[in-house]
Amino acid sequence: MAWVDDTNSILLTDLYELTMLQSYFAEDMRKDAVFSLFVRRLPENRNFLIACGLEQVLDQLANLRFSEQNIAFLRDQNKFTQPFLDTLKDFRFSGSVHAVAEGTPVFENEPILEVVAPIGQAQVVETFIMNQVHVQTVSASKAARVVAAAQGRAVVDFGARRMQGADAAIKAARAFFIAGVDATSNVLAGELFGIPITGTMAHSYIEAFEKETDAFDAFIRSYPDTVLLVDTYDTLEGVRRVVALAERLGPSFRVRAIRLDSGDLIELAFKARQILDDAGLSQVQIFASGGLDEHVIARIVAAGAPIDGFGVGTAMAVSDDAPGLDIAYKLCAYAGQGRLKLSAGKPILPSRKQVFRVEQDGRAVRDIIARDGEAQPGRPLLRPVMKDGQVLADALPTLSESRTLAASEFARLPEAVRSLDPATPPYPVVVSDALLAHQEDVRRQVGA
Amino acid sequence: MAWVDDTNSILLTDLYELTMLQSYFAEDMRKDAVFSLFVRRLPENRNFLIACGLEQVLDQLANLRFSEQNIAFLRDQNKFTQPFLDTLKDFRFSGSVHAVAEGTPVFENEPILEVVAPIGQAQVVETFIMNQVHVQTVSASKAARVVAAAQGRAVVDFGARRMQGADAAIKAARAFFIAGVDATSNVLAGELFGIPITGTMAHSYIEAFEKETDAFDAFIRSYPDTVLLVDTYDTLEGVRRVVALAERLGPSFRVRAIRLDSGDLIELAFKARQILDDAGLSQVQIFASGGLDEHVIARIVAAGAPIDGFGVGTAMAVSDDAPGLDIAYKLCAYAGQGRLKLSAGKPILPSRKQVFRVEQDGRAVRDIIARDGEAQPGRPLLRPVMKDGQVLADALPTLSESRTLAASEFARLPEAVRSLDPATPPYPVVVSDALLAHQEDVRRQVGA
Repeated sequence: MAWVDDTNSILLTDLYELTMLQSYFAEDMRKDAVFSLFVRRLPENRNFLIACGLEQVLDQLANLRFSEQNIAFLRDQNKFTQPFLDTLKDFRFSGSVHAVAEGTPVFENEPILEVVAPIGQAQVVETFIMNQVHVQTVSASKAARVVAAAQGRAVVDFGARRMQGADAAIKAARAFFIAGVDATSNVLAGELFGIPITGTMAHSYIEAFEKETDAFDAFIRSYPDTVLLVDTYDTLEGVRRVVALAERLGPSFRVRAIRLDSGDLIELAFKARQILDDAGLSQVQIFASGGLDEHVIARIVAAGAPIDGFGVGTAMAVSDDAPGLDIAYKLCAYAGQGRLKLSAGKPILPSRKQVFRVEQDGRAVRDIIARDGEAQPGRPLLRPVMKDGQVLADALPTLSESRTLAASEFARLPEAVRSLDPATPPYPVVVSDALLAHQEDVRRQVGA
Repeated sequence: MAWVDDTNSILLTDLYELTMLQSYFAEDMRKDAVFSLFVRRLPENRNFLIACGLEQVLDQLANLRFSEQNIAFLRDQNKFTQPFLDTLKDFRFSGSVHAVAEGTPVFENEPILEVVAPIGQAQVVETFIMNQVHVQTVSASKAARVVAAAQGRAVVDFGARRMQGADAAIKAARAFFIAGVDATSNVLAGELFGIPITGTMAHSYIEAFEKETDAFDAFIRSYPDTVLLVDTYDTLEGVRRVVALAERLGPSFRVRAIRLDSGDLIELAFKARQILDDAGLSQVQIFASGGLDEHVIARIVAAGAPIDGFGVGTAMAVSDDAPGLDIAYKLCAYAGQGRLKLSAGKPILPSRKQVFRVEQDGRAVRDIIARDGEAQPGRPLLRPVMKDGQVLADALPTLSESRTLAASEFARLPEAVRSLDPATPPYPVVVSDALLAHQEDVRRQVGA
């Protein structure tokens, strides 16, 4: 089947990246360029984004190669000269990257990463970098809201079936975990990233048996401590069948939880809890799924419904209220000179930059986007992660470390920014005077 | 890097598919099940969906294998018995599939495909089938609207950078092409699926030169018949520089088009056209991009703006107004008996089905969902595509054939359904009396 993998991912690029690469070769332009990856405006429904996907970017840059087969395909397009195609055999990424750590909350116009490399190298990786950071940042940013709404209750990713393709299914599971989701149902994401995997049972399993009770009996023969799905026919009747099962099995009853997947989850949870508690089954937890998003979960939590964990599918899987980001990867310097475009409504901050997060009493109060090298108050967020094409030693924390960082950084955001409602005013991001002056200088020079 | 490919795609599944598979093995349940894939409700902003992704489903089913490495990972989970793991070595999909042709418009509750296979086999492929059909059906359904809005003007997919991951970038490009998009900027999608690839130039290229004119000069040295991007600094000034270039080059000027990527595209297109025409450059086309979706394109076309083609990015790439479908893969029969669940708001049509599209004067007027084998007026849409685990000879048309079918089927939909506005009333989908009676029969039998 047609897949993207290490043998062809270099061609996961817009054609113009390659035609520009050839033109830079033809014009002998190989001075260093600075490209900045940032989101121009936050989506309406997001007070912050969680930067994610750096590991895949660095992996790609460190291993960038055109294979014989890649080159042969390009040759067949009749757009490339043989001298240019010959250079592709030895094409490597030799530049440097500064980036914010995965899991860091970022805001509009703040660089998520900046690439410094000979212009062709820095240009040709644009599409890939954007693609991988986009999907993971979209996913982590949505998941952070879901996790916040759950207020410490377990959140499990049930989304693989409705994610946008196979790569999203594993990369989003990774991003969700960084953002605080506890586990995934996606087996492959578990294998590839070491994320805890979990699962319950489907309605189809229940339906395959003549009676719901028979299905429960059969499933616990294989999985005594499983989660039983109780809403296939009549939810509360299903709960009573679990109670009957407990009575039949006595001390060997080890069912861990029931799952509700339809109906009024709040009302059903209260009633199911009562039935379980009345039967002395207070240890049996209640897990809910079915149409959940951060708002539904917040209502459930606010109602005090006795639900111990949430399986979240489509809404988180596709980030339904903000599926796309206005993410851009823009040239901001070439040959040591700041560059920008003047296109309407799309301002660029030229040259290498740093983002400082200013905190008071352990709470972030504003960010400052400054020129690289400027002294500013606050913590600098961008740090070197790649030099001369090599990933730096401490550039890539483990997934658990990124998850811990994300939780800690999130906790330090102002309460209004952490809220599900739009923060008014939004979190303050200011551009330093020196960077504004530099922008003005560059603006006056370009466009002649 | 972590990718999904043929060596691990069988693990792109929810854990419960595998635990249920083991339980079916333990319980010796291996009778045939029927699973149906359908969308329960259309998104608010869709009058129809374009079914897409069947080729990837059949490819997966025909080649389904657990490798030693896949099995080793499962063994490490301590959830599976050795006798069960031993069966996975020889696990194959031996069932049959009926499906609507890719490119067919479908409506709520209509089966996109139905799988008949021993229950474990039919169950374990659920997540993968849904994932692949979901992303391509979401993408094709959005693209069909964009293509309709463009009324014959060229539409090019510029979305790879903001699609949800690498697999979506190639699979959506495939779906877009089936839905009528003319070309993609995505080189790998071009290689893997034979879709025409195309591209222009980026702002960064222009900015890398001291002067816009120098950039134009350099780019046409490599690509004399290219598209020049004119909005980096001042759009109309950029157009005048193209005119100056034409005057300098005389008969060797072969630039094919200019591209507008910002500002008021309608106003700029009229003015740019005037400047070009006044200079005798009526052959130079105008190509537009930047924040386009079907609604913006419809306004441009309605205004009569002289724009010859559209590059469409984010909105189409993520299907921003309907990123997720309420798609389901549901057991509807086991061991020859119809099955369904009674969960609130999620009705199931039991047993194998057929969809008939009834037409009058070459225009579709209603669909009938009927039991398989029923005589009904209209064209049956589901046809056999796989038998005994083998793809049938005529099951997979070429991409171009699917594209032609999609255009022809779209043209036969009622005008209100083809419109960008919600069709009121929606396209009529009726369930046959025999199927309703069967549903009622099954409903009475289940849930004891």
